[in-house]
Amino acid sequence: MEKIQLQNQAPATPLPIVIAGALVDGKENYLTIGAYGVMSIQPPVVYISSMKGHYTNAGIRKSGYFSINVPSAGLIKKTDYCGLVSGRDADKSEIFSAFYGKKKHAPMIRECPVNALCKVAKTVELPNNDVFIGDVIEYYVDKDCLTDKVPDPKKIDPLVLAGRSYRKLGRVAGAAFIAGKALIKKP
Amino acid sequence: MEKIQLQNQAPATPLPIVIAGALVDGKENYLTIGAYGVMSIQPPVVYISSMKGHYTNAGIRKSGYFSINVPSAGLIKKTDYCGLVSGRDADKSEIFSAFYGKKKHAPMIRECPVNALCKVAKTVELPNNDVFIGDVIEYYVDKDCLTDKVPDPKKIDPLVLAGRSYRKLGRVAGAAFIAGKALIKKP
Repeated sequence: MEKIQLQNQAPATPLPIVIAGALVDGKENYLTIGAYGVMSIQPPVVYISSMKGHYTNAGIRKSGYFSINVPSAGLIKKTDYCGLVSGRDADKSEIFSAFYGKKKHAPMIRECPVNALCKVAKTVELPNNDVFIGDVIEYYVDKDCLTDKVPDPKKIDPLVLAGRSYRKLGRVAGAAFIAGKALIKKP
Repeated sequence: MEKIQLQNQAPATPLPIVIAGALVDGKENYLTIGAYGVMSIQPPVVYISSMKGHYTNAGIRKSGYFSINVPSAGLIKKTDYCGLVSGRDADKSEIFSAFYGKKKHAPMIRECPVNALCKVAKTVELPNNDVFIGDVIEYYVDKDCLTDKVPDPKKIDPLVLAGRSYRKLGRVAGAAFIAGKALIKKP
């Protein structure tokens, strides 16, 4: 296989699509992000990265909290909108119904089936981005997206960004921590 | 919709599956990871998070480099195997064909259609994980996975981890930065 060297860029992988929520000047704001990921399972730690100057960043810095909301494919228009338009130019507080956890730290989106409230543990400054690393301190899932009390990807129906398209989950290719067992050499 | 509060955990999103490569004691080693993400598009910065004590971590710390390799769905058995078995217990150097960039910093996987060489810019210590943040300094894509010189997700055929299953990409739900345009209010 011939390898072509391209200009340095983030590798072409699918990216999970989440909507970050934060209070900015006391108002609910939402920002759609693919620059999200898990840093630790136990304790649960995630991050979002947002370009410096984004309206949301100031709110996260001030409050010390953000939320992660996982939109279903049916929310694609609103999801894309929240990545297209800055809270500086448009009031995004009305686009979703907010709910809060124990305190009014950061708005979570009722319409999204999965919601996590995160407390900023550390901020990493990159040349053009603020990376907010957060401990998950509250976690909610729609009742009808659970199967045997476990969040069910098929019911959640999340989106990934692949190239310039949002895509739904495709068919199961194999089971994690099982598919590779056949290659383990027996002593 | 009734929201159920669950024990705090990483939110249920699909995670991109990549195989990290590193030299450990001069030998090629590979570790499959879902704790990967993009932190900056320009300049390109990504991270991987790996539990402290993982064999790979020592190699990344010592060399200051790691690679990101994107496996196609056809590589699912080897991909899962590299997440199941530690390099401490099994020699994983023979499972793939390694290639190197300009210098022998970290092995990239010839069989994976997308490869990035990353130089560690910062390491964040979490209670149980090392988070290696790396600048992408070389980037390679298989020639037959390009369409008009751009990496093509359909040809790359990557995997995401959703719950306990690896899944292929599903159907296109919409176009990024276009699907939401209809909601922009005209002045």
